[in-house]
Amino acid sequence: MNSDKKKGTCLQSEKNKTAHNLSSCFENVRSERPLVECITNYVTVNGCANLLLAAGASPVMADDIEGAAEFTRIADALVLNIGTLTPWVREAMKTSLAIAKERGIPGVLDPVGCGAAASHTRLSLELLESGVSIMRCNQSEAKALLGLNAAAHGVDAAMADQVSEANLGEACANVAELARRYGCVAAVTGAIDIAASPDGRVAVIRNGHPMMADITGSGCMLSALTGAFAAANPGHWFEAVVVMLAAYGAAGEIAQKNLLPGEGSGSFEMRLIDAFNLMNTKTLQEYADYEFI
Amino acid sequence: MNSDKKKGTCLQSEKNKTAHNLSSCFENVRSERPLVECITNYVTVNGCANLLLAAGASPVMADDIEGAAEFTRIADALVLNIGTLTPWVREAMKTSLAIAKERGIPGVLDPVGCGAAASHTRLSLELLESGVSIMRCNQSEAKALLGLNAAAHGVDAAMADQVSEANLGEACANVAELARRYGCVAAVTGAIDIAASPDGRVAVIRNGHPMMADITGSGCMLSALTGAFAAANPGHWFEAVVVMLAAYGAAGEIAQKNLLPGEGSGSFEMRLIDAFNLMNTKTLQEYADYEFI
Amino acid sequence: MNSDKKKGTCLQSEKNKTAHNLSSCFENVRSERPLVECITNYVTVNGCANLLLAAGASPVMADDIEGAAEFTRIADALVLNIGTLTPWVREAMKTSLAIAKERGIPGVLDPVGCGAAASHTRLSLELLESGVSIMRCNQSEAKALLGLNAAAHGVDAAMADQVSEANLGEACANVAELARRYGCVAAVTGAIDIAASPDGRVAVIRNGHPMMADITGSGCMLSALTGAFAAANPGHWFEAVVVMLAAYGAAGEIAQKNLLPGEGSGSFEMRLIDAFNLMNTKTLQEYADYEFI
Repeated sequence: MNSDKKKGTCLQSEKNKTAHNLSSCFENVRSERPLVECITNYVTVNGCANLLLAAGASPVMADDIEGAAEFTRIADALVLNIGTLTPWVREAMKTSLAIAKERGIPGVLDPVGCGAAASHTRLSLELLESGVSIMRCNQSEAKALLGLNAAAHGVDAAMADQVSEANLGEACANVAELARRYGCVAAVTGAIDIAASPDGRVAVIRNGHPMMADITGSGCMLSALTGAFAAANPGHWFEAVVVMLAAYGAAGEIAQKNLLPGEGSGSFEMRLIDAFNLMNTKTLQEYADYEFI
Repeated sequence: MNSDKKKGTCLQSEKNKTAHNLSSCFENVRSERPLVECITNYVTVNGCANLLLAAGASPVMADDIEGAAEFTRIADALVLNIGTLTPWVREAMKTSLAIAKERGIPGVLDPVGCGAAASHTRLSLELLESGVSIMRCNQSEAKALLGLNAAAHGVDAAMADQVSEANLGEACANVAELARRYGCVAAVTGAIDIAASPDGRVAVIRNGHPMMADITGSGCMLSALTGAFAAANPGHWFEAVVVMLAAYGAAGEIAQKNLLPGEGSGSFEMRLIDAFNLMNTKTLQEYADYEFI
Repeated sequence: MNSDKKKGTCLQSEKNKTAHNLSSCFENVRSERPLVECITNYVTVNGCANLLLAAGASPVMADDIEGAAEFTRIADALVLNIGTLTPWVREAMKTSLAIAKERGIPGVLDPVGCGAAASHTRLSLELLESGVSIMRCNQSEAKALLGLNAAAHGVDAAMADQVSEANLGEACANVAELARRYGCVAAVTGAIDIAASPDGRVAVIRNGHPMMADITGSGCMLSALTGAFAAANPGHWFEAVVVMLAAYGAAGEIAQKNLLPGEGSGSFEMRLIDAFNLMNTKTLQEYADYEFI
């Protein structure tokens, strides 16, 4: 993939090419009610569980090796989020990921803090190299995983790393390279979301609202949700991720519209979960704004 | 107790027999402001603390052996919730439960994940056998603790294990057996709540709203609250549990009524805590729907 | 400082003496967007991160020694909150505090549970003696750190320890003594907030609303915010703390006013974060009620 060639073509592709799959990808989560196990940080774990429930999935959060492994043996998806790490959580992640691969259920990675903390980068690379199905991260983390010079110094993406229409071609090339290099679906989110499959497909999703960056956990919740959408759509992980990114972004747009006077970032998380909970395929089709490039 | 005999009689008992105690059981939490120590999972811990405060109790959350034991020596109740486990949390639970028994304060157990994960079942049985005052769980966990074939594969009760009017007699017999076998008050909650005392009393509580299953922690919060109601009503744990189940279910009903347009499961937890916080005995008496059978 | 002499003079000092700094202290958080690392308890960690974002700061929560130390090397402030402790968290706190001192970034301590649990008092004293920049606690914890007889038996301040106009002089003397003894800015909050600098300045802040005591984490969130205000106002930590206490209290007042019918403590936390998120310097100046004594 050549990033220069992409620059001019990103916006010219046929819009919403998989529109016929959009409804089923979304509805399958509700009809399948997948059991999604998350080994995740304690900062945003509550929101992750609540968004999974709002989407129609069944969450189970675990962190000790024994319990985590037991749940992986019955779960429909495994989500690893490395936001807060302890020695036993690292071990639980490796053990559960091995079981997930053995069982053929999707294993999702959110490499929180990559680039900002070397220990997070190391663990992310180790997990990626052992094989994950889907990775969801922000632009700074994506750059760090590609060995590029990322600007992030915390767990949020740096302004300098934000994707805009101006640098979209280069950003798409980076995400495609991530997907290719690690053999997984890669979803890199921010002002503009980009998803890529290991076989070279790339999608750009323009849903969402800037307020999503004003709450903690908007990325973590999305990674948890990735487990649900992948589990409910076997064989269609890439399409499911694209639909999910559109749906989550749409929920953010609706949440912002639903804010009452005097409501700010504190109420936004509730309204975001509300919007996802009440979303139907009609609303989703109305809002969804994505294209395959 | 014979489950067959119960089937026809469950609904024929005198309604709200302990109505004279309802107000005091509820008000005692506010007047006594019991210190409730919770060794609980990190997923729903914030909601547990906030519901305790909303009810008028004072929460303290602990997990390392030393700190947990220090608080148990001054607490008015101890609540053990095994949702997320680590080796030191297991030890802290055992140490604190021994102190609670020595001091004669109520020890509450929420056996989260029993039946779904063998390690959770083992720890629950160990804690039950060492002696707890009150156990609060869902139907799938209750079945697992009785050695019956539970359908749950996560931390939520399975649909197949739900209590309805059709299988209420059998469900009541199971809860009564749990109370008898483990010598504790047993509260098993779901679409219909059932409470039983170790001396053979059984109550059925029909408050609540299905949306309570759409948020994480509605069971955990109830278990935390159990500590507050037990501490504030010494010698009347069974009655206190019945009143609490009615009050919590009523709060769920009110919360659903209070949802604004565009609000779903994201706002429901706030409205549930709001409703419990603003509840008074007049509202409680208006909503409470329970009977002793 | 003589507590008797202060009793009559507390209310006679020139009001809002540093009013010219108020706006800049507040705005600097938004313009500097400091990276605030919190090693904090898992009960209220989500609210801490969300309040930091609402204020314009960038939060990063950590707890293992390696990751925590890596973030301290790039953070603009470090906040230590000892609400829930484990052996590795204790070590992470000591390691990160040493790095913070070496780098000259502010180190904030919230000595949760001091006085109620001896292990919490011991660790607090150890951290204070190794040197912190700012300490934020409640009245019961302040008394315990001074070796006075505190009434607290949980993590909330005891009624008997509350500051009122009647005992304000004595309370101010205690806070001044804490600041002097440990060479840090001390902020002791409750119905009336008091701040003192190690060089003998004392301020009384009368913003806030009683509902702030009805939610878990109102103190923890304030301690997290202290890191942001200190980082954004180098050389003016005392003034920044005073402005922050006024702003946070004002947000509490606004949050209470913004409650809709049927809303109680459950919605209050959202509305508190909303109010801080939407606050501007005009609103702050309108609400701020503090004096230097």
